[in-house]
Amino acid sequence: MNIEEFIRTIPNFPKEGISYKDITPLLQNPQALDFCVKKFAEKINTEVDVIVGIESRGYFFATLLAKHFNAGFVPIRKKGKLPYKTLQETYDLEYGQDILEIHEDAIKAGQKVLIHDDVLATGGTAKAACNLVERLGGEIIQCNFLIELSFLDGRKKLVPNKVNSLITY
Amino acid sequence: MNIEEFIRTIPNFPKEGISYKDITPLLQNPQALDFCVKKFAEKINTEVDVIVGIESRGYFFATLLAKHFNAGFVPIRKKGKLPYKTLQETYDLEYGQDILEIHEDAIKAGQKVLIHDDVLATGGTAKAACNLVERLGGEIIQCNFLIELSFLDGRKKLVPNKVNSLITY
Repeated sequence: MNIEEFIRTIPNFPKEGISYKDITPLLQNPQALDFCVKKFAEKINTEVDVIVGIESRGYFFATLLAKHFNAGFVPIRKKGKLPYKTLQETYDLEYGQDILEIHEDAIKAGQKVLIHDDVLATGGTAKAACNLVERLGGEIIQCNFLIELSFLDGRKKLVPNKVNSLITY
Repeated sequence: MNIEEFIRTIPNFPKEGISYKDITPLLQNPQALDFCVKKFAEKINTEVDVIVGIESRGYFFATLLAKHFNAGFVPIRKKGKLPYKTLQETYDLEYGQDILEIHEDAIKAGQKVLIHDDVLATGGTAKAACNLVERLGGEIIQCNFLIELSFLDGRKKLVPNKVNSLITY
């Protein structure tokens, strides 16, 4: 299956000059969903205790991966949305900064954690997620992404963590 | 399994006087995730073509339900986040209004649609989601929710659609 056929490029979204990769046609296709989960799983050769999904498009495959690996699911959310005690990480945006949070009881020390988001761009969000997981004592076994925008070099920011992506532009 | 044991009540979140139902302990438990999907499925006795999840906590179980039913997954998102052509519905908040969107090619006329969100409160969000699905010609077979706050009477707003919730407060 060529899953790139299910990715739709939207010119000038969210602003002029950006080519947005729209994954919704892929999500509409159950065979493509299954195929992606299997492709992700092929690159994981250890047990997984927890799948961490980054708000909000990271949730789509994170819960499916949790099901596949019989693992728990943990959401990382934007500031102010998680109701219990949290750890925070600040990360840079193109203009300004933003804050991600994780519940402080979301991961136990030593648990094997897979971090998932839909797109790896500059890596700032994923790096903040890695920091949150590591501060809780989680062992990151891989960061995986449906799409990697390799020209933005986000993979470098995640060293020494392993990175896997299904589609690279 | 008593899934209520995995729901944590957070007093005064997001503001004074509100008791927030935190589902993250449930999400961390793979057996509880499986149990909920099976309980949801017990109340569906027809084929399902599409699971619609409402941003963003509705995504957690919506993708798992899509997997269970071998259905497609469609996200309904807050205004401005979907990149392709959309339909919009405005709904009332406690103070002011908000807008939900769906891609106009997300559902084909006649498809059987299950709408999922984590919590049914006043029903405003779910009603807007129903309107979007119906405007695309989808046939709503059920609206389901992990949690229903029955004292807010949201179920009435969704008549004549079928409503199912796993936990009622």
